[in-house]
Amino acid sequence: MAITVDRENRIPAYIQIRNQLREQILRGDLPRGTRLPPERKMAQSLGVSRTTVVSAYDELAAEGLVEARVGRGTLVATPPPGLTEEGSGVRPLAWTAHVTNLAKRLQGEKPAGLYALAELCNRADLAQLCNGVPDSSLLPLDRIRQACETVLRESAVAAVSAGPKQGIPPLREVIASRLARGGIATDADRVVVINGAQQGFDLLVRLLTEPGDTVIVESPSYLGAIDTFQAEGLRVIGIPVDRDGMDVDQAEFMVARYRPRFIYTVPTFQNPTGTTMSLERREKLLGLARRYQVPIIEDDPFGDLYFDEPPPPRLKALDGSGHVLYLGTVSKVLASGLRVGWLVAPQPVVEAAAGLKALSDSQPVSLSQHLVLEFMRRGWLDEHVDTMRAIYASRFRAMDAALRRHLPREARWTPPGGGISMWLELPQQVGAQELLDAAAPRGVVFLPGHYLYPGGGPSNTCRLNFSVPDEHEIGRGVEAMGSALRQVMRRRAQAPAERAVPGPIA
Amino acid sequence: MAITVDRENRIPAYIQIRNQLREQILRGDLPRGTRLPPERKMAQSLGVSRTTVVSAYDELAAEGLVEARVGRGTLVATPPPGLTEEGSGVRPLAWTAHVTNLAKRLQGEKPAGLYALAELCNRADLAQLCNGVPDSSLLPLDRIRQACETVLRESAVAAVSAGPKQGIPPLREVIASRLARGGIATDADRVVVINGAQQGFDLLVRLLTEPGDTVIVESPSYLGAIDTFQAEGLRVIGIPVDRDGMDVDQAEFMVARYRPRFIYTVPTFQNPTGTTMSLERREKLLGLARRYQVPIIEDDPFGDLYFDEPPPPRLKALDGSGHVLYLGTVSKVLASGLRVGWLVAPQPVVEAAAGLKALSDSQPVSLSQHLVLEFMRRGWLDEHVDTMRAIYASRFRAMDAALRRHLPREARWTPPGGGISMWLELPQQVGAQELLDAAAPRGVVFLPGHYLYPGGGPSNTCRLNFSVPDEHEIGRGVEAMGSALRQVMRRRAQAPAERAVPGPIA
Repeated sequence: MAITVDRENRIPAYIQIRNQLREQILRGDLPRGTRLPPERKMAQSLGVSRTTVVSAYDELAAEGLVEARVGRGTLVATPPPGLTEEGSGVRPLAWTAHVTNLAKRLQGEKPAGLYALAELCNRADLAQLCNGVPDSSLLPLDRIRQACETVLRESAVAAVSAGPKQGIPPLREVIASRLARGGIATDADRVVVINGAQQGFDLLVRLLTEPGDTVIVESPSYLGAIDTFQAEGLRVIGIPVDRDGMDVDQAEFMVARYRPRFIYTVPTFQNPTGTTMSLERREKLLGLARRYQVPIIEDDPFGDLYFDEPPPPRLKALDGSGHVLYLGTVSKVLASGLRVGWLVAPQPVVEAAAGLKALSDSQPVSLSQHLVLEFMRRGWLDEHVDTMRAIYASRFRAMDAALRRHLPREARWTPPGGGISMWLELPQQVGAQELLDAAAPRGVVFLPGHYLYPGGGPSNTCRLNFSVPDEHEIGRGVEAMGSALRQVMRRRAQAPAERAVPGPIA
Repeated sequence: MAITVDRENRIPAYIQIRNQLREQILRGDLPRGTRLPPERKMAQSLGVSRTTVVSAYDELAAEGLVEARVGRGTLVATPPPGLTEEGSGVRPLAWTAHVTNLAKRLQGEKPAGLYALAELCNRADLAQLCNGVPDSSLLPLDRIRQACETVLRESAVAAVSAGPKQGIPPLREVIASRLARGGIATDADRVVVINGAQQGFDLLVRLLTEPGDTVIVESPSYLGAIDTFQAEGLRVIGIPVDRDGMDVDQAEFMVARYRPRFIYTVPTFQNPTGTTMSLERREKLLGLARRYQVPIIEDDPFGDLYFDEPPPPRLKALDGSGHVLYLGTVSKVLASGLRVGWLVAPQPVVEAAAGLKALSDSQPVSLSQHLVLEFMRRGWLDEHVDTMRAIYASRFRAMDAALRRHLPREARWTPPGGGISMWLELPQQVGAQELLDAAAPRGVVFLPGHYLYPGGGPSNTCRLNFSVPDEHEIGRGVEAMGSALRQVMRRRAQAPAERAVPGPIA
């Protein structure tokens, strides 16, 4: 029983003693029947008066936490039982009785494999083909320093002080002009600066859905979006993706049947598959949105990262009727720790989103906004994107070449036209998790695809990321994958009864 | 009708034309019956082929937006009517049909007076006694620059890259040790870094309440909290505040009757009243929380800003049973645009809050966290707080002296022991809004108190802020208030029938 009294502390000594004892009793460190030190002895050892200790013990007794027994001193009682809710006893707050359905869904366990995977993704000795982030070794640190210095020289007060909930106007203006160059006709008034696209998911879900509503996503899709939608209590229906993007006919079938509150799509260099929705399908999806009056959330973190040819126009550029809510971000092209993204939407949505943003966290961080503004104003963001584009293109080509060289013919992939990841279909009898188990000891980690299908999907797919590893690491990683894959296939051939049956694409 | 075709744009010309026309028709810029230019003429003026224009017009006709009439050319049709939801027509998304109850509550109009007030609060010619923020002219800009430079020299990659959802561990550690000095025994694991206390309100409301639930706050209380609680659909019950803080007996009555999901309090140098809850009431409030198993949200933005004597221990320091969820922030002591605050709570709440934080916006901004870490590590935050403390104390004394000198005896106030604002009770017959109307032309603006009572309150109170104006501005402002007040009282004395009847404190 370690009790201390801090004389510098303004909390009266008897309260300090009472609180520490109370906490130890409630935690179970002092089990029922434990004898507290005699008052005089406790007073001596703490250097306080006996009255102080008596006061502390008395309060604990009044709370039912200890009992004074004649001849035996003060003993720890059994605290909670027998106390009604209005009882005078002290119990720790029972949180599970107080939390909402949202909180309960957050407590739901993640698949165990994800924890093991997270560990593998941090190992420096493995070829890292699993992360969906930009290569931090390519960060334009000198320019970031320079931009920060300029900001804190020229607009220091604004850069750390409160600003408008919708984001600072000059940043919204450069964002609007940058979007206009991509064919999205908008203006600063229709831009809300948010803490990355993730905050966009959260704001839009809260503005457009109630728990129990249905939404439509691609299958597979982005885990950060699926997780948010499911935690908020939505029913998430996945629509298969092929080399031309979401299967819009199937989407129409589901829209007619389930009347979703929105369709979430990453139409350009999709995470995870790397595929891009064709212009024809974009037009078709927009027609569907208009006919059924269903909003589309267009998540566009990768659109600028094309290798050779620019992708088809953004959905938002083709949208004349305000059905597309567009999300952009610097997280995948510059740096994700700045948390600067943007929502572009019709005026009523912008107003509601800015209002909810204000209640959620007042405003986007001023310093981040000024920094990104400086980067955009000087043309540095575009220059950096151009650099990344070339590097990622070269890394993708290295991956493509290594896959051709090291993987058996049964493995298939669609080369993406940009972005940071691609999708690999393994031979049908090979589960991606089994492959990972065999591949990790050979020095490579990648993301098994089955985590990314809302409601489940085939077990023989995986996402390969080429933005973080360099060409050498990619070659080494894919070679290890190939060797592991041949081993697994040999094992399967020897024991055909154990074959994994691929599930339908949900 | 301004139509342009951008040849650099990858969107086919016919789609560009169709979309611009569609938007103008849906916006009502081209009313029903408007004749579109003949195809050949339109093609010439845009420098495109006639086929291109024909395709655009055809698609608009298929959508029901235009009609081709023999001999009259192509006319704008009346778009929406007659179309079923599955119809082929194009209508702008009708947002009101799609938004949630939360979104509808956000659309609720603010009291008109608040807009007028916001305008007054931006006028440089008025003595500004109305803002609840730190004085930006006292920002430690050189140290902010120096800290930023150090961060971007020593940990540039981490400062802009992704970090943990709960906040970076070294920042959580310095926050925990700083709290420990104030008697709050905690550790880094029980700290969640959030985007200011405002994000704490949002996360906790979502974890602890469902719409329709009841919560208890002080009356008057902080507008940012009241607004959030009401927008999230909560029933907000206000408990009166006197010079010793919240009336805990009345709180107990309301807790027993309404079983609130939490009690929200700013116990130390409360916003708006500046009063501080006594130690006795703190203990009593904690007892109440334990007996009824109701969590307390302790919002503590001002606790360090005492003038002479430190305030009583924080509720969290007295809490041995995990009933207190503590919110701290640098917004009122350093800079609010950095958006760095912290939640300290029992482990299950920390886990849920960090999980919800991850879904809401991934993580706190890395750069802000590193900057605040550097400030705390070097002891600069404490030094700055000491400086502010002395300045605000001097400004408060100037305000107190000016009030004694310029206000009639009927006005009353309780001198706060710290913080940035104080509460003024006007003579009963004087409404604060009427006083403001008379005072603004004399050169001063303050916040009428009636906005700050959830569910309404007396009209003869106002909040006076002394953190932004210097001693001279304070003197000038209070003198103007006094002169306006005497004018209003004379007016009232002449027309007693118009007396404002003060309402009960709800």
